Amino acid sequence: MIKTPYLLFLGDAPDQLAAKVAQGIKDWRPDNAVGQFRLEGCGADVGLTDMTLEEAKAAGAKTLVIGVANRGGVISKAWKKVLVQALEEGFDLASGLHNLLRDEEDLVAVAKACGQELHDVRVPEVDYPIANGVTRKGKRCLAVGTDCSVGKMYTALAVDKEMKARGMNSSFRATGQTGILITGNGVPLDAVIADFMAGSVEYLTPDNDDDHWDHIEGQGSLFHISYSGVTMALIHGGQPDALILCHEPTRDHMRGLPGRDVPTLEALREIALPMAKMSNPNCQVVGISVNTQHLSEDDAVAYLAEVESKMGLPAVDPFRQGAARLVDALNAL
Amino acid sequence: MIKTPYLLFLGDAPDQLAAKVAQGIKDWRPDNAVGQFRLEGCGADVGLTDMTLEEAKAAGAKTLVIGVANRGGVISKAWKKVLVQALEEGFDLASGLHNLLRDEEDLVAVAKACGQELHDVRVPEVDYPIANGVTRKGKRCLAVGTDCSVGKMYTALAVDKEMKARGMNSSFRATGQTGILITGNGVPLDAVIADFMAGSVEYLTPDNDDDHWDHIEGQGSLFHISYSGVTMALIHGGQPDALILCHEPTRDHMRGLPGRDVPTLEALREIALPMAKMSNPNCQVVGISVNTQHLSEDDAVAYLAEVESKMGLPAVDPFRQGAARLVDALNAL
Repeated sequence: MIKTPYLLFLGDAPDQLAAKVAQGIKDWRPDNAVGQFRLEGCGADVGLTDMTLEEAKAAGAKTLVIGVANRGGVISKAWKKVLVQALEEGFDLASGLHNLLRDEEDLVAVAKACGQELHDVRVPEVDYPIANGVTRKGKRCLAVGTDCSVGKMYTALAVDKEMKARGMNSSFRATGQTGILITGNGVPLDAVIADFMAGSVEYLTPDNDDDHWDHIEGQGSLFHISYSGVTMALIHGGQPDALILCHEPTRDHMRGLPGRDVPTLEALREIALPMAKMSNPNCQVVGISVNTQHLSEDDAVAYLAEVESKMGLPAVDPFRQGAARLVDALNAL
Repeated sequence: MIKTPYLLFLGDAPDQLAAKVAQGIKDWRPDNAVGQFRLEGCGADVGLTDMTLEEAKAAGAKTLVIGVANRGGVISKAWKKVLVQALEEGFDLASGLHNLLRDEEDLVAVAKACGQELHDVRVPEVDYPIANGVTRKGKRCLAVGTDCSVGKMYTALAVDKEMKARGMNSSFRATGQTGILITGNGVPLDAVIADFMAGSVEYLTPDNDDDHWDHIEGQGSLFHISYSGVTMALIHGGQPDALILCHEPTRDHMRGLPGRDVPTLEALREIALPMAKMSNPNCQVVGISVNTQHLSEDDAVAYLAEVESKMGLPAVDPFRQGAARLVDALNAL
């Protein structure tokens, strides 16, 4: 559990894309961030007030979140100076970088001396149980994809946001580092030991109110041979009541696997639903979420209409059209 | 890679069952063990010559393998004395115990001083890659089960043994601690980090001769919600040419999951084969292996005949009948 609100560290980000974690926090949990901290020459701006550490502290910030990728996998001297100062002024630090805060001896020493915490969200902080498969109360929705990186996190966040806007009882459950930094907690599923994957998903989505929806962030794809085991654990550990199928229609092969075709949405439904029914016999596929960023508006609308008619399910791009129709479909369950 | 041959340490095993790892080594790789070492009051005997450390050393033993479960998860003083002596006399140690050799400070110190190795086969010793899905040469067979603990390891070992007896080019590929101790190497798959599971299976079953068969030890079940992710990684990382379906017909629920029914062999085929074809489009289900230990001989024969007719595939219990018909089916591919 990372303490909120945050000050977002953009460092010397060369461009806006390098600060996409910070942008995600700003977009999806604006209440979690009081401001941004930029070094000289920073090429990113997520549209928050620039603050010094002192100003952010006065505004209530509790954690400095590294919201930017570092260059060459090294935490530079310029960064280090700010991180040490932040610890000394009473901030915790949180990071999704490949190189871990806990492997930086100076940061560990200062954090210990100051009584502050270092959160490396790539690494599990909990000893997860083995999944027991016991049926839990409350409702769960999982986004599954024809491939990796097709918009599963975006879909879950958009559906959660729409439910909250309607006053519904809803949580986004993060399973990757960006999602964990956005919400302040979650399970870094790709770093969990094999035997405990499904158990970690059960832990993440416990018993809840009957009218509560967990929107579980998907990972990988049942069709992606590198990561399908992680997806499998999400489907069985999550015991979803509803699946949303996610797709990106312009790929000519599976991400990172040249020569391997992306499956159809029909093929995904045919494989994923029987798998989900093993864990939750009532599970249904409720809708389709398509990432149409590489299509024109006209092509996107035409493509979505075609998918909708072929699959007999609402098909939307939540980025273009919002998630209202997906929430309607979930409500109709 | 654990150095062979072994001296098998049976310690103070209360009964034969406690020494099942040692028994497995003796049964499947008799050439890997020169003898057994028993403490006063040992209730197990795997049928090898009792040897002192000196005698085993003279017979060529290189590793003392703990072939017995310890009581209460503690390495006792009586055990420790033998383990320290073994290190001092030039043995490596290998263990599949929950409590690790590497966590015993005295063993670590003596091993270092003597230049000997400690192998905890529950813990990966390799940084596995992420799976790349590239098609590999040689042939691979994977046993998949309707449930956990239905005889997948036994089946793979029996098929490998039959192939070797026929002079064929064949390897058993261990993915669990018992299998690793039997063969001296393998991947402790349930302890691998999620992202690297499928990659570890690719690592375990690399390019090989065109006529070579890898018999990959299965784990879990696609239908077992606690471990299905591990099974999925085996299917996709192993890119099997052949699947053998494994079943135990007397279970009234999935192992450790009361209330959850064991699926039929038909249901297993329907789910597992499409999954395997994602990784290897030529994959076929070649046969059925049934663990009939809880059936009488007559009932077993009748049950196998029924399964064979229903599934249209050879159905055998390799413990009762050997694996010849499964090897015939693999040869016919």
